[in-house]
Amino acid sequence: MDKKLLVFGHKSPDTDSIASSIAMAFLQTKLGNSAEPRRLGNISKETEYALNHFKIGVPELLTSVSEDDNIILVDHNEFDQSVDNVQNSHIYMVVDHHRISNFQTTDPLYYYAEPVGCTCTILYKLFELNHIMIPADVAGLMLSAIISDTLLFKSPTCTKLDITTAERLAQISNTDINTYGLAMLKAGTDLSSFSEEELLDLDAKLVTIGNTVKAKIAQVNTADINDVMSRKDKLEKVMQNGINSLNLDLSVLLITDIINSNSQVIVLGSRSDLIEKSYSVKLENNTAFLKGIVSRKKQVIPILTANV
Amino acid sequence: MDKKLLVFGHKSPDTDSIASSIAMAFLQTKLGNSAEPRRLGNISKETEYALNHFKIGVPELLTSVSEDDNIILVDHNEFDQSVDNVQNSHIYMVVDHHRISNFQTTDPLYYYAEPVGCTCTILYKLFELNHIMIPADVAGLMLSAIISDTLLFKSPTCTKLDITTAERLAQISNTDINTYGLAMLKAGTDLSSFSEEELLDLDAKLVTIGNTVKAKIAQVNTADINDVMSRKDKLEKVMQNGINSLNLDLSVLLITDIINSNSQVIVLGSRSDLIEKSYSVKLENNTAFLKGIVSRKKQVIPILTANV
Repeated sequence: MDKKLLVFGHKSPDTDSIASSIAMAFLQTKLGNSAEPRRLGNISKETEYALNHFKIGVPELLTSVSEDDNIILVDHNEFDQSVDNVQNSHIYMVVDHHRISNFQTTDPLYYYAEPVGCTCTILYKLFELNHIMIPADVAGLMLSAIISDTLLFKSPTCTKLDITTAERLAQISNTDINTYGLAMLKAGTDLSSFSEEELLDLDAKLVTIGNTVKAKIAQVNTADINDVMSRKDKLEKVMQNGINSLNLDLSVLLITDIINSNSQVIVLGSRSDLIEKSYSVKLENNTAFLKGIVSRKKQVIPILTANV
Repeated sequence: MDKKLLVFGHKSPDTDSIASSIAMAFLQTKLGNSAEPRRLGNISKETEYALNHFKIGVPELLTSVSEDDNIILVDHNEFDQSVDNVQNSHIYMVVDHHRISNFQTTDPLYYYAEPVGCTCTILYKLFELNHIMIPADVAGLMLSAIISDTLLFKSPTCTKLDITTAERLAQISNTDINTYGLAMLKAGTDLSSFSEEELLDLDAKLVTIGNTVKAKIAQVNTADINDVMSRKDKLEKVMQNGINSLNLDLSVLLITDIINSNSQVIVLGSRSDLIEKSYSVKLENNTAFLKGIVSRKKQVIPILTANV
């Protein structure tokens, strides 16, 4: 690969999208390629905490790519979650842990996906496969991504491999998983400085469910659901604006209590019935409590898809 | 994985599709899963030669799957090259070396793809990764697939990794690559017993080029192009029937000279101009000579896509 590879995760980047970009760019550089991490949006307070803790800089913002760009997608594959014009660039590699959808290439490519809790768990394997040592700071950031995606191993997306990988990364980075992990997750739940617009874009995905329902599913983590619910009226106004401007059939905000592993949802749009049907709940004032639901990937998107 | 996994390659199976299915089913069984290889059509004379040589049985035919089936796709991912109803089954894993297109899942999955010449080259890596020994007969069959897909390392799809993997598999199976390889390829070029219908389905792919041009691109290998061209009138009749029944915009037969690495093409359909434009040739009586063109994947599909 003569040209520079740009490495990035999904829009509204979470800690895994940022950590995977940095770790993959490092790996490619060690393999003799020129590679740089990028981000497709503002980082969260959780990610900021992790980057500060391990003294790693924030990747540059990327807003669009051209057909001359060689890119590596990490932590996503769906074009509508990716950078503008991604379909016209040259996709050199994908490393991901999500379903495959709205994705296609003209040429054969490297594609590694596994149904594990975190992209960084797969990246750890690629470092091992290629016999490349992971420096302590990068290892700490990769550990942060696993803690974030698995909510300290409590999410149903968490696999044994995520846990054993996190333990190895904790050794390399000399980190106490529980102490550091709780502090990092807590840093991510300080939502007071965000506007409602920002809250709804902290970790949001646009998905088309069953080829028909255009939906935006946003998620915020909190230690206190009531704290976020006190802003419900303003949040609903912003969600309604999004429905109008993006022509959505469904807009969902998952407010996830990371201590007790439940979510409160706010739901708007002509297909709000899909949430009621999927979880056998009745929305009252556009909201419902979803007991035990914490994972958009494992407990929301496939359930909505099955009920559409 | 409690349920049985069905493992299969693409329709009109070539040696790689059959060998990958058998090798992957063996690997999964060693990993503690219940898995069986299947085939989606008749095997070629080349594949028959390889199976006989290494004393391995022909996999059972599979014509359709249901939503209760757990499947592994090897050597393909596009749904229109796969078994009927594939989109409703549960896709557990894909191992492939083609572009990704017309493919989607509801859930996260294992997906390993690399831009190498043969699926068996990737499978060899998976055996190594999992520390599973490859028995001599399976190794011989995997070697056959690499020889077949790379035309004894002469195809532009062939990578260094295909060659080093073939050399390792030759050691394990105690096979002389050149002697065996030429004999196997030659066995595949004896086309005399096939009807024109069969010739056009020996190794055929349905593809949609640039989302608009519905095309069937068939390929036969021969040691003597004239031998196949003497059947041109009858081949054209069958191709025209296929255009009518499948509503194709383009039907192409690549007649590939495996000794000299060139192809003669027969081209029918309303978008025949795409071949003329792509290779700067003029079709005369629906045919043209394409110097140095031997790979449908690397020298035909992407070139047509770029020129559509």
